[in-house]
Amino acid sequence: MCAQKTIRVGVIGAGRIGKIHAESLATRITGAELAAIADVNIKAAQELAEKYHVKQVYSDYKQIMADQTIDAVAICSSTDTHASLMIEAAQAGKHIFCEKPISQNLAAIDQALEAVNKAGVKCQIGFNRRFDANFKKVRQLIQEGKLGDLHILRITSRDPAPPPAEYVKTSGGMFLDMTIHDFDMARYLSGSDVVEVFAAGGVMVDPAIGQAGDIDTAVITLKFANGAIGTIDNSRKAVYGYDQRVEAFGSGGMVAVANNTPNTSIYSSAEGVISEKPLYFFLERYMDSFIEEMREFIEAVRSDTPTAVTALDGRKPVVIALAAKKSLDENRPVKLAEIE
Amino acid sequence: MCAQKTIRVGVIGAGRIGKIHAESLATRITGAELAAIADVNIKAAQELAEKYHVKQVYSDYKQIMADQTIDAVAICSSTDTHASLMIEAAQAGKHIFCEKPISQNLAAIDQALEAVNKAGVKCQIGFNRRFDANFKKVRQLIQEGKLGDLHILRITSRDPAPPPAEYVKTSGGMFLDMTIHDFDMARYLSGSDVVEVFAAGGVMVDPAIGQAGDIDTAVITLKFANGAIGTIDNSRKAVYGYDQRVEAFGSGGMVAVANNTPNTSIYSSAEGVISEKPLYFFLERYMDSFIEEMREFIEAVRSDTPTAVTALDGRKPVVIALAAKKSLDENRPVKLAEIE
Amino acid sequence: MCAQKTIRVGVIGAGRIGKIHAESLATRITGAELAAIADVNIKAAQELAEKYHVKQVYSDYKQIMADQTIDAVAICSSTDTHASLMIEAAQAGKHIFCEKPISQNLAAIDQALEAVNKAGVKCQIGFNRRFDANFKKVRQLIQEGKLGDLHILRITSRDPAPPPAEYVKTSGGMFLDMTIHDFDMARYLSGSDVVEVFAAGGVMVDPAIGQAGDIDTAVITLKFANGAIGTIDNSRKAVYGYDQRVEAFGSGGMVAVANNTPNTSIYSSAEGVISEKPLYFFLERYMDSFIEEMREFIEAVRSDTPTAVTALDGRKPVVIALAAKKSLDENRPVKLAEIE
Amino acid sequence: MCAQKTIRVGVIGAGRIGKIHAESLATRITGAELAAIADVNIKAAQELAEKYHVKQVYSDYKQIMADQTIDAVAICSSTDTHASLMIEAAQAGKHIFCEKPISQNLAAIDQALEAVNKAGVKCQIGFNRRFDANFKKVRQLIQEGKLGDLHILRITSRDPAPPPAEYVKTSGGMFLDMTIHDFDMARYLSGSDVVEVFAAGGVMVDPAIGQAGDIDTAVITLKFANGAIGTIDNSRKAVYGYDQRVEAFGSGGMVAVANNTPNTSIYSSAEGVISEKPLYFFLERYMDSFIEEMREFIEAVRSDTPTAVTALDGRKPVVIALAAKKSLDENRPVKLAEIE
Repeated sequence: MCAQKTIRVGVIGAGRIGKIHAESLATRITGAELAAIADVNIKAAQELAEKYHVKQVYSDYKQIMADQTIDAVAICSSTDTHASLMIEAAQAGKHIFCEKPISQNLAAIDQALEAVNKAGVKCQIGFNRRFDANFKKVRQLIQEGKLGDLHILRITSRDPAPPPAEYVKTSGGMFLDMTIHDFDMARYLSGSDVVEVFAAGGVMVDPAIGQAGDIDTAVITLKFANGAIGTIDNSRKAVYGYDQRVEAFGSGGMVAVANNTPNTSIYSSAEGVISEKPLYFFLERYMDSFIEEMREFIEAVRSDTPTAVTALDGRKPVVIALAAKKSLDENRPVKLAEIE
Repeated sequence: MCAQKTIRVGVIGAGRIGKIHAESLATRITGAELAAIADVNIKAAQELAEKYHVKQVYSDYKQIMADQTIDAVAICSSTDTHASLMIEAAQAGKHIFCEKPISQNLAAIDQALEAVNKAGVKCQIGFNRRFDANFKKVRQLIQEGKLGDLHILRITSRDPAPPPAEYVKTSGGMFLDMTIHDFDMARYLSGSDVVEVFAAGGVMVDPAIGQAGDIDTAVITLKFANGAIGTIDNSRKAVYGYDQRVEAFGSGGMVAVANNTPNTSIYSSAEGVISEKPLYFFLERYMDSFIEEMREFIEAVRSDTPTAVTALDGRKPVVIALAAKKSLDENRPVKLAEIE
Repeated sequence: MCAQKTIRVGVIGAGRIGKIHAESLATRITGAELAAIADVNIKAAQELAEKYHVKQVYSDYKQIMADQTIDAVAICSSTDTHASLMIEAAQAGKHIFCEKPISQNLAAIDQALEAVNKAGVKCQIGFNRRFDANFKKVRQLIQEGKLGDLHILRITSRDPAPPPAEYVKTSGGMFLDMTIHDFDMARYLSGSDVVEVFAAGGVMVDPAIGQAGDIDTAVITLKFANGAIGTIDNSRKAVYGYDQRVEAFGSGGMVAVANNTPNTSIYSSAEGVISEKPLYFFLERYMDSFIEEMREFIEAVRSDTPTAVTALDGRKPVVIALAAKKSLDENRPVKLAEIE
Repeated sequence: MCAQKTIRVGVIGAGRIGKIHAESLATRITGAELAAIADVNIKAAQELAEKYHVKQVYSDYKQIMADQTIDAVAICSSTDTHASLMIEAAQAGKHIFCEKPISQNLAAIDQALEAVNKAGVKCQIGFNRRFDANFKKVRQLIQEGKLGDLHILRITSRDPAPPPAEYVKTSGGMFLDMTIHDFDMARYLSGSDVVEVFAAGGVMVDPAIGQAGDIDTAVITLKFANGAIGTIDNSRKAVYGYDQRVEAFGSGGMVAVANNTPNTSIYSSAEGVISEKPLYFFLERYMDSFIEEMREFIEAVRSDTPTAVTALDGRKPVVIALAAKKSLDENRPVKLAEIE
């Protein structure tokens, strides 16, 4: 290990998620160095650079691509830039950590995947929930055979508050923007690919979301290649907070994971027995998994082992999301083969 | 109240469920008298009669129908006799408690309903789960508006062990035999009718069930008239026991009910932290609700008020079950209107 | 079993607890017959008798004692009559179920025990909590060695509301009136006798209780013959309801039992995650154990086996209570040997 | 805030706890700089310094004391050096973070306190549990009056495995070594001082501990100045892991905090319903509170506000521990006034 080199990483995008990865790289991860930060909003980039004593700060990400001393990039810019940045990074020979989704467009994804494969660089997609302790445990029990054959997989994924309708318009729709995490989770936990989708949904939370052409509530049925059946339920607004649970049921038993809370207190008064609400939203809930995914990416680069979430893993949930959209529009089950 | 008469009840069928109702009527319910017991298996009828000091014991239920001193009958015989016994009882002017389902055949159900309506007798169908403390609480919170508008309803209903394939052959299939309780629960909890069903299912527990033409595992999506979406997941075999949970989610909050257990112990050892499995099966789990449904039936008769589960409530889950069957066969969502 | 005779029981005292045992004997327990009821308040006796079709109703319990056809008595009268009624019943050759405590006076208890022993009748004291499913499970795990050697036993026992100060005056004090159940529980669960007690306590709930010479809050340390240490905490007023928990810790693990609730619902709203309060008080909480203790008493009589709670088991908690009282008064640990 | 200076901290002691504080200072805490590390084991100091790029590494802590550019010291050396190091640091004008306990000797503590007061430096003692999210919540509910008047405080504190008997010999005994955290917690949560202690205890886990003159199991009763009663139960060995729970009960309600677990999974199989064991020991369980206490210390120095755990807070639990020891030896309640 002592001989392993330190991986110099350039972070592209100094927004919310870029800040998280910058902090991890700068302070939490052995073997990584936060080498450069780029953002068209140069002020955001500079603030971040100052905080972690980073000397290379750019408004143009191309300077990161051109820097031969930089080993890897973390693509944290807006979704519509992901695929092209992946291609540029691959061509520059840099290992790639890219936020999800790669693109809403399958052709664009395929071009990015091709570039990555051709360059032979490491690539990891930011499906951070795979690195969460709860979901890892579910996966582990399934892999170890503790549930026997998987029969039913249930995913509950509800946000505490809907995004503005303005955001919704360019988000690609709930399935590509929100459920995509659950589609990845379904594949990750089951260890199987999805072959068919049926989506029921509606506008129940905010009429403006409907006017923007999207839905805010859904129940989705998945059929897996291994014969198991999955169900995902989504809402854009759970008044009690961010609801992130999973239940897997099989011939040998069941495992369920509950929400995480800020503390374990239970307060009993004349009014009732009150425990804590779930951690509010994804920053609170998944902070550890954001750190862990970056740690594992750096490890994969350093030890030249496969990444935990491959570029192909980044493509497949997009296909499921597109099938779900088609299913909802046509009110019928849709095979993934139809989308390809 | 003091002037109210005692309701004399004849129990038809001295099998498992007949025994339960006989015991309730004989020992638990004020205002009821277990007056007569009939079973083609006269020995079963006699044993039961002896236990509760009942003098009228018959192999032929017609003697109960003919007895003018008997106010009501509890129909606990095999499913294929329910509809015709309801008709005979109605014509004899007797109030009717009838086990579910009324029939697997809609025409037969409609004839029974017509006879009941014509005779003007009380009729209650044995959807006992409506009388369970957990589910009553969910219904109450929804009715009181504590969940706001209902968005998503989730029902988990898994048996501890599958029935013999022999039984499956005449059961009418899982949807009519097992899920029918969940279809009723969906209507009861949501306070809304189901308008469309999509069923996914398979044979995962026992190939013999498949050979008998049935499935043993299912995930069903329901669309309600009020816009909410429901999902039911069923299995014929949960190795950890009888799994009976419900979760209702709405604009104002969520309520979930967990399984009941024989005690509240949690045992922590070097191996883990172990709590009790759910109560094993429906006799253990729903004993209180079997008593309570009969108590409320007797009260409805005594106070001349509507019964808690009407004959029409007995018909509707059958329609949903038939739609679910059609959906599974044709792999498409089926509107209930198609079935009528 | 078929040859076993039916045990004819006379209930003495038609108050709250007498009603419970009368109902059990009349409707729930195979092999028992509610034969007679006596109460100086003849109206209370008559109402109860009518409800269960009992023909022998007396204002004078002596008529029960004199009735040769009556096999057993259930002594449910006020505490100050228990010991003398036990003696009379024993002398009349009747088996005895007696509510706790036998007496607040050790000499009176000893006379009653002597009479019972001399007559050779069965005797069971009404420590009903021994028959509760939660506590039975704790006892079972300890007996089976699942906890290894017992090290620490914790009992939490808090009432939802204090009794009137008027009642407190004649109650014998909190230790004899309320904690006595916990002292019995300590012996029952540990399978060991208490040898020393240290009691800390105060008046925190109601000053009137202090003026009546009693306390309403206590923490008691017990040392057991087997070396384990116990701690009991009591309050006369828990605003969230009747709090009845136990935790046993040993070299092999720990078991804890939680409160029972009316249902398992958990309601999540913007205000918090709310579960049900404990069942309100002992009638709701321990109804099953009241029935079960009587069932086991009847079985012991019928099968001529030892009762589950002997007369000596009725005496020992009184000794502990007296030691606790002395400890509180003198602020020092008191050995039980001092009390004898 | 921007004008606030960075606090340069020298860590004395590069053992287990020194490493934790060094990491926090180097990577987690804004406004702090890990400036120097000293350890008689120079290799341990060097390793730590290398990891966090610290240039000043000493075998002699006096070089830290002499360095005028260092603002504060974190005393993480062995217990017997704490008091004298505090005095030296105070005399050198350095702010002091000192691990608990200050000393096992009251006179030594008083000299240290005098030096701190005289120098007017900030001083914080390492009772890290005060910074844990669970216990903070309990404290907060009590402070906000949500429990009304506090009546009963229960602390359960059990280690997963006993220390070697060799360690026990110099540890000062369980009360000073282990329970001291619980004594501090009792003061912190109740917001009141302890006035009297009664301790029951024994050797149940390991005879070697008894041969070393110590106990390994205890139940301790505390009387608080505000009238409340506390109870602490300790064991050196809980086979299921590190058991750290608190329950506070008052006139307005109760709050209980449960153990933290590595994940929220519940696995149901034919064998039972299994949830995770508590986090194994204090490093896993209290990592966040170790970071948080250091963050608050640095903040107190930077903003010139009182520290969260004062030097006097470091003295008081030692007095309680000495009283508990005396109580155990003499089997009687001991007033704290006796110890002074």
